[in-house]
Amino acid sequence: MQDLFEQKKTQILKDMESTSLESPDLSPKGTIDELCIPIMNLINSNKDMVTTSSCSGRVSVFLEGSKYNNVNDDDKVKNEGVKIGAKGNGGHWLFVTHNPFELKNWWKDKNFLINNNDQFLNINETTRYILYKFEPFILHVKCRDLKMAQKLYTIAMNCGFRESGIGVNNLVAIRTSIRLDIPIGFLQETTENLYLLVTEQYLELITNLSLDRFKENKKRLNSLYNSISKMLEKNDQEIEQEHLQETKEQRRARKIKEGLARKEQVRKLKENIESI
Amino acid sequence: MQDLFEQKKTQILKDMESTSLESPDLSPKGTIDELCIPIMNLINSNKDMVTTSSCSGRVSVFLEGSKYNNVNDDDKVKNEGVKIGAKGNGGHWLFVTHNPFELKNWWKDKNFLINNNDQFLNINETTRYILYKFEPFILHVKCRDLKMAQKLYTIAMNCGFRESGIGVNNLVAIRTSIRLDIPIGFLQETTENLYLLVTEQYLELITNLSLDRFKENKKRLNSLYNSISKMLEKNDQEIEQEHLQETKEQRRARKIKEGLARKEQVRKLKENIESI
Repeated sequence: MQDLFEQKKTQILKDMESTSLESPDLSPKGTIDELCIPIMNLINSNKDMVTTSSCSGRVSVFLEGSKYNNVNDDDKVKNEGVKIGAKGNGGHWLFVTHNPFELKNWWKDKNFLINNNDQFLNINETTRYILYKFEPFILHVKCRDLKMAQKLYTIAMNCGFRESGIGVNNLVAIRTSIRLDIPIGFLQETTENLYLLVTEQYLELITNLSLDRFKENKKRLNSLYNSISKMLEKNDQEIEQEHLQETKEQRRARKIKEGLARKEQVRKLKENIESI
Repeated sequence: MQDLFEQKKTQILKDMESTSLESPDLSPKGTIDELCIPIMNLINSNKDMVTTSSCSGRVSVFLEGSKYNNVNDDDKVKNEGVKIGAKGNGGHWLFVTHNPFELKNWWKDKNFLINNNDQFLNINETTRYILYKFEPFILHVKCRDLKMAQKLYTIAMNCGFRESGIGVNNLVAIRTSIRLDIPIGFLQETTENLYLLVTEQYLELITNLSLDRFKENKKRLNSLYNSISKMLEKNDQEIEQEHLQETKEQRRARKIKEGLARKEQVRKLKENIESI
């Protein structure tokens, strides 16, 4: 019999395996980022953890949603519900990539109009800005118990993921703060033109700075991979050590339990094969 | 007798009370932000929580530290240890405020030189950037037990503090993501001049956007205050309800315990007065 945690883990891994370009998951991108796959496999190889969501890091350029509910043209009502940088009311991505090699000249086909200082006169409190963001790696991991959640949390903090935290149900969020969050332009509602607030050289500069951040991000991700790997090895050694100290009876009972677990595993695999 | 949590709480509150402009704490600002005081008092009024650090939200303008260790002028060695936006090696704040009313024209006395496109030619991988940041409210609260930590965490998440998390020892970090993180200029090492990468109008614009973020920040902080307040009221009601259901013996035992706790409180107060 699977316990509750195992049931949930099996379901999550099954959903993950069936995700592809043709059958996307619920994330904006629809598939798992390649850079995340090794660390996800490492974590999921342990019986007490399962990854639930991830992003390897990305650059996104976003047009904010409208800050008004258009009742009619003469009677615009400010939409108090829409927040800074919100996605509702017509907000949408102009560009997203998880791949640093796709970054170069990303703005060339966006038909941005170069700002001149007069353009600043058109800005008011309802202006919809174009925001350029670098967002780093993030990973959510559900752990079987608080002990494992705290182990993983401590490792993440030590690897520079200083904004990590444990939520309810032993869900660990692994987060860091290498960011860029830059207003680079705005929408002129009357003409629907997108105007830049910065120069093209500045766009090139922040694109290069994003490459540095992708590198730093990858460095931390590698360090996290290595630390988790060491922790799991140590875990295995501790379990082995415990086995060396057990009595004959304890060893017999464990072997029976492990045998039953293996049989159960085989049964599940068969079931899965039959259900395909 | 105080338990361990109470001992720690007493010490933290004592340290906090003795903090002033003349006797600052270890934070860069040295004193507690005014906007944080009501929510800190609310949380500290509960026997199962104590605030350990806080920031009400701020704008900071920062010059990155050197990315080189100067061995000698001909033989510069890249300092692999210094990270993006790092404070070491000569990095320092050019401007910090927690008060939106101090923001206006903050750049006027900084002697920034206006960029012309030629300035971009001076930029290379060791360039020290000037970073403009808006950082939102953050609060750390140590809770007596996991149950209280999870209650507080859930409230924070529901109030829009979506990057909150529980660390080890029931320490809750309450965090949100209203941010700006913008490279606005750089240091020309040869002349020690600070050059802008953006126009003065752009500085004015991001300063105004920071005012919006200060407002949104305050709104979330108020919502958090109200939700915690409601939670504590409900807590009190539940305790009262429990008291109504207790037997005479249970009531007697509780009254004795409460009486002893009060006596202890008075003793501590006297001790504190004597030690001043």
